[in-house]
Amino acid sequence: MKKIMNAPERFVAESLEGLVLAHEGLLAFGGGRKFVRRRVLAPGKVAVISGGGAGHEPLHSGFVGRGMLDAACTGHVFTSPTPDQIVAAMDEVDTGAGCLLIVKNYDGDVMNFEMAAEMAAPRHAVETVIVEDDAATGPAVRSRGRRGVAGTVVVEKLIGAAAEQGADLAALKALGEDLNGRIRSMGVALRGVAVPDNARETFVLGPEEMEFGVGIHGEPGLARTRFADADAIIRQLGEAILAEFPPGLLAAEGLRPLLVVNGFGGTPPIELYLAHGLARRFFEARAIMPARALTGTFVTSLDMAGLSLTLALLTPDQFALWNAPVATPALGW
Amino acid sequence: MKKIMNAPERFVAESLEGLVLAHEGLLAFGGGRKFVRRRVLAPGKVAVISGGGAGHEPLHSGFVGRGMLDAACTGHVFTSPTPDQIVAAMDEVDTGAGCLLIVKNYDGDVMNFEMAAEMAAPRHAVETVIVEDDAATGPAVRSRGRRGVAGTVVVEKLIGAAAEQGADLAALKALGEDLNGRIRSMGVALRGVAVPDNARETFVLGPEEMEFGVGIHGEPGLARTRFADADAIIRQLGEAILAEFPPGLLAAEGLRPLLVVNGFGGTPPIELYLAHGLARRFFEARAIMPARALTGTFVTSLDMAGLSLTLALLTPDQFALWNAPVATPALGW
Repeated sequence: MKKIMNAPERFVAESLEGLVLAHEGLLAFGGGRKFVRRRVLAPGKVAVISGGGAGHEPLHSGFVGRGMLDAACTGHVFTSPTPDQIVAAMDEVDTGAGCLLIVKNYDGDVMNFEMAAEMAAPRHAVETVIVEDDAATGPAVRSRGRRGVAGTVVVEKLIGAAAEQGADLAALKALGEDLNGRIRSMGVALRGVAVPDNARETFVLGPEEMEFGVGIHGEPGLARTRFADADAIIRQLGEAILAEFPPGLLAAEGLRPLLVVNGFGGTPPIELYLAHGLARRFFEARAIMPARALTGTFVTSLDMAGLSLTLALLTPDQFALWNAPVATPALGW
Repeated sequence: MKKIMNAPERFVAESLEGLVLAHEGLLAFGGGRKFVRRRVLAPGKVAVISGGGAGHEPLHSGFVGRGMLDAACTGHVFTSPTPDQIVAAMDEVDTGAGCLLIVKNYDGDVMNFEMAAEMAAPRHAVETVIVEDDAATGPAVRSRGRRGVAGTVVVEKLIGAAAEQGADLAALKALGEDLNGRIRSMGVALRGVAVPDNARETFVLGPEEMEFGVGIHGEPGLARTRFADADAIIRQLGEAILAEFPPGLLAAEGLRPLLVVNGFGGTPPIELYLAHGLARRFFEARAIMPARALTGTFVTSLDMAGLSLTLALLTPDQFALWNAPVATPALGW
């Protein structure tokens, strides 16, 4: 699979350099290029730090900026950043109010962020939010909790906005835990993904196949099925999401849905918008009326073709956080 | 090639519906769903209207909003909108100051927008700007002028901003003509594109091939070459662009470059940012110092893999227009 790339070992570093150059008003490299940070910090607020493997761009570095993250640490493709990177970010962007770490629920990420939090404990107040939104990895499938996928954007936006408004570490941690039970995502792949190191596709789909329940690292999904029309695809994604919410939550007083349609990297806007329209119809036919929407390419799996739907059930206060101003490379309003 | 689609004949309509639903605060359908318009018009300003075939999303409908377009007319995939659509848009969004039409230089688009302008002449003051930025289609290649490709985003942004600031029809037309000589783009495809009607790829590239000088409708390019590393690709694109500027213009007093890296639909952010970094290095090594940058997926050819570079040489006043606030689905600051 062809990539715009010089060499696998320089792929991530050269991409991060391009990101920072393209947004040099907002972004800067941290010391030793171990992470990407806001060019200008906001003293007194909690530092919100995230990170993970490369290959999910614009997540996480593309969400660094006012109203969202203070720093993002990027590992090799599909590989956690090291504790050293994360500690360096904490040391540089914590202006005194402590650090809130946002971590997608993968063993390597959880382990390295935990190790970093322990190493930094003597110097920093630290809390961690683990994102667990993947409807494909409920308790019956995976004992270590759901994976973190595109719902991460919602968590980073809301926690980032709350931090900008002065919420303290405990309040941000509580917000993250509250969100975790109310965000579910489900993805489908139309074409697999090749990691740059070995150019081998992690899974290969035939011209008439698709795969449901895929992750964002080329993990195999739950079911390989015959390729179908968009209505059938959206219905299958939507039903999987609805089935993974606790009973009663969808009809709970005071909660309204935010709908995210996320492309995995190889899916063009014409298809993403089409999916958004069909998803709206799917949910509205079930009396689930999205109050806000986000459609685009936010959490990728390199150039995988496919998309995910995310439904987040938010309180009015959380919608206010969603609507709060944000200025990052990949999200701005 | 698999697409998120129900049926070819509903592909464009369902995608436009999703776009409008996803951005219903900004957008609305015009009468008869013939075009997409701003939900709230700005009376007294010139109406800026564009359009073209579908398959280039977010161009043009994704650029409707404050500071950019007032309406966009979309045809079938890779097919011009009809004069009827364009006239309907003029009738609905011209609030009295006339209409500025922005048209990419393709025979069908030029013909249909011209016909619409003639039909509307009794009721509307109309001027037209034809965008001609494709370095692959200089006079030696094509007698009907250069094709309009990703530079269209720059033209729509600057003319939209000028209209918002109260520029009249003659001034907007002059701005467009001024820009035409100072914007050049060049694209490369790594994978061809299949139109939904026949599912046949318009050109097929082998695993070790790429094609330079491609258009955005699956047109064959200028040269098919062996796939190479990113530095070589960027060098070839950059040299083609520089060769197509009139001698002396690159060193002209008072002009600074804007650099656009545009994905064609199937190219993920990690590769686009990498390309941006290398393009910066390429141009800066030649003493061409981009003052601003834009990187992302703006002018697509369905899900074609590949990208284009655009260099626009702008005056300080034009940079002020670039920096002016904009609120559209696909561009906002």
